[in-house]
Amino acid sequence: MKLLITGFSGFVSQHFLNFLEENAEDAEVCGIDINKPTFDYGNYKNIQVKFYTVNLLEPDTLNIILDIFRPEFILHLASFSSVAYSWKHPIECFNNNTNIFLNIVDTVHKLKLNCRILSVGSSEEYGNVTEQDIPLFEENKVLPCSPYAVARVSQEMLSNLYVNSYGLDIVMTRSFNHIGPLQDTRFVIPSFITRILKIKQEGKQEGTIETGDLSIIRDFVDVRDVVKAYYNLLVYGKIGELYNICSGKGIALRDIVNMISNITGIRVNTVINSEYIRVNDNHIIIGSYEKIEKDIGWRPIIPIEKTLRDMVGYYEKINDNGCYKKFDN
Amino acid sequence: MKLLITGFSGFVSQHFLNFLEENAEDAEVCGIDINKPTFDYGNYKNIQVKFYTVNLLEPDTLNIILDIFRPEFILHLASFSSVAYSWKHPIECFNNNTNIFLNIVDTVHKLKLNCRILSVGSSEEYGNVTEQDIPLFEENKVLPCSPYAVARVSQEMLSNLYVNSYGLDIVMTRSFNHIGPLQDTRFVIPSFITRILKIKQEGKQEGTIETGDLSIIRDFVDVRDVVKAYYNLLVYGKIGELYNICSGKGIALRDIVNMISNITGIRVNTVINSEYIRVNDNHIIIGSYEKIEKDIGWRPIIPIEKTLRDMVGYYEKINDNGCYKKFDN
Repeated sequence: MKLLITGFSGFVSQHFLNFLEENAEDAEVCGIDINKPTFDYGNYKNIQVKFYTVNLLEPDTLNIILDIFRPEFILHLASFSSVAYSWKHPIECFNNNTNIFLNIVDTVHKLKLNCRILSVGSSEEYGNVTEQDIPLFEENKVLPCSPYAVARVSQEMLSNLYVNSYGLDIVMTRSFNHIGPLQDTRFVIPSFITRILKIKQEGKQEGTIETGDLSIIRDFVDVRDVVKAYYNLLVYGKIGELYNICSGKGIALRDIVNMISNITGIRVNTVINSEYIRVNDNHIIIGSYEKIEKDIGWRPIIPIEKTLRDMVGYYEKINDNGCYKKFDN
Repeated sequence: MKLLITGFSGFVSQHFLNFLEENAEDAEVCGIDINKPTFDYGNYKNIQVKFYTVNLLEPDTLNIILDIFRPEFILHLASFSSVAYSWKHPIECFNNNTNIFLNIVDTVHKLKLNCRILSVGSSEEYGNVTEQDIPLFEENKVLPCSPYAVARVSQEMLSNLYVNSYGLDIVMTRSFNHIGPLQDTRFVIPSFITRILKIKQEGKQEGTIETGDLSIIRDFVDVRDVVKAYYNLLVYGKIGELYNICSGKGIALRDIVNMISNITGIRVNTVINSEYIRVNDNHIIIGSYEKIEKDIGWRPIIPIEKTLRDMVGYYEKINDNGCYKKFDN
């Protein structure tokens, strides 16, 4: 299979490459990203991987790559996916989500590529939901309540337009919060873990971390389950359809902190820092994976306990090397 | 009143200025547009008008103008409003509708301006409607089916976001097809009129024009009624609300051709040119003006016969001077 991956340098892409390395035969990957990858992409044995630095807001290079490489599949992972960041930089967020997606689909259309695109969206699109709306199904009304969420709904409208008007082969997702090793420590779970590990590293058995609202409930799905869903949707998904990718379970952030506390053996006290409270945040997000299970047989299999244990192991290792990134949102 | 008008050089803006000249006291207008106006904006007696060339995709100049001028009202007319054009240039259309709007609201928010913005949307947002959905109410589901329509729905989602999250004072419209003197001859009714007048000018009593699908039904509202609605919504509309601006009546394009034929005294034959048939066009669009009438007492008053008669008179006059623009979509 010939596959283009945008957002190649991110953590989801790395897990996707690992999945291909273990499962796919004859995969030829062309990766593009605005930033160079920090991992060594030349070391895979079973897949061929190339990388190019590309700014998707300037579509000329994208046009050249697509015209020459002619992928059968595009996994579109490039995004500014932080809700908090989108509040601070709404214009940048809109450009780097909706507009780059439009550049991709329009280039694929103009080049008449015979190519399936996976358009990755977000559970944030559901927006202002209440307990009665839970679990969230794909046909639910969307009420996006952050710049990031609006940008993702716009991407989805553009997907529907290009499918219905030009017959472009696009499959859409609403991916719920995915977590796992390699994730940037600016995201909530890695930030909990690395700060709790710092307490441990300082030789203490107890410590305090500042948090946002710990009562909010999210549906966390292991990134390794997510990339399996992406692969199967690329190969077996139905054109023009939209799929939730989720665990089907809700867990409060407070319980996540407790689980990390148990895994690390550190007693964790929390204090609320109002800076971490988001404008307009949803209290509860839990999805249903009924549709994707029915259509392609995917369901999440990794329990959150294993995910968190693997993450603690991963960050414990890089912690020793002092590789933390700054936690700034 | 201090008022900023974007899209100042367009035909709606000119009618709005005429309305202010006749009705408003002490209006101070700052007009901006990417193109210089072709009309003389220095000749108004009762209103003060300034103009600056601004590209809304580069928000630095907008920021300066808003910070110094500090308007109480923004009438946001700037747009790439041709559906046909949006099919040919989807990226440009998205940038010049959604992204410029985001630049405006984000600048107003960052400058903390106490200012009401009128966000002009389109009946095209309703999209794939059937006879049962007619007339269209604001709470109907939107199913945008052109790049232009998607861009407008995105603009509306951004409006709701900035109202709900930051308390920005935005009032939204879904404006139906508005027509009147001064309209660019690339739009459908002026293009019918000018081509029929050309037959008359050549001294003939009968002639043929090429058209698209004449069975499609639209809700045409006189631009002079539209600008009165815009003024009243700026002053009296309810924050965060969305209003249809329409005539409440549907008329087939074929009947419009017949009416122009009667007014001009020219027998008109039509032949279909498939180039004028749009991808994915809606067959019927008719709105309800119930909500805007209830909230601010606006209703359309100019009958389409008068609109068409005034348009024929206007184009007959400029026709004599050979001022037609090229009909190219």
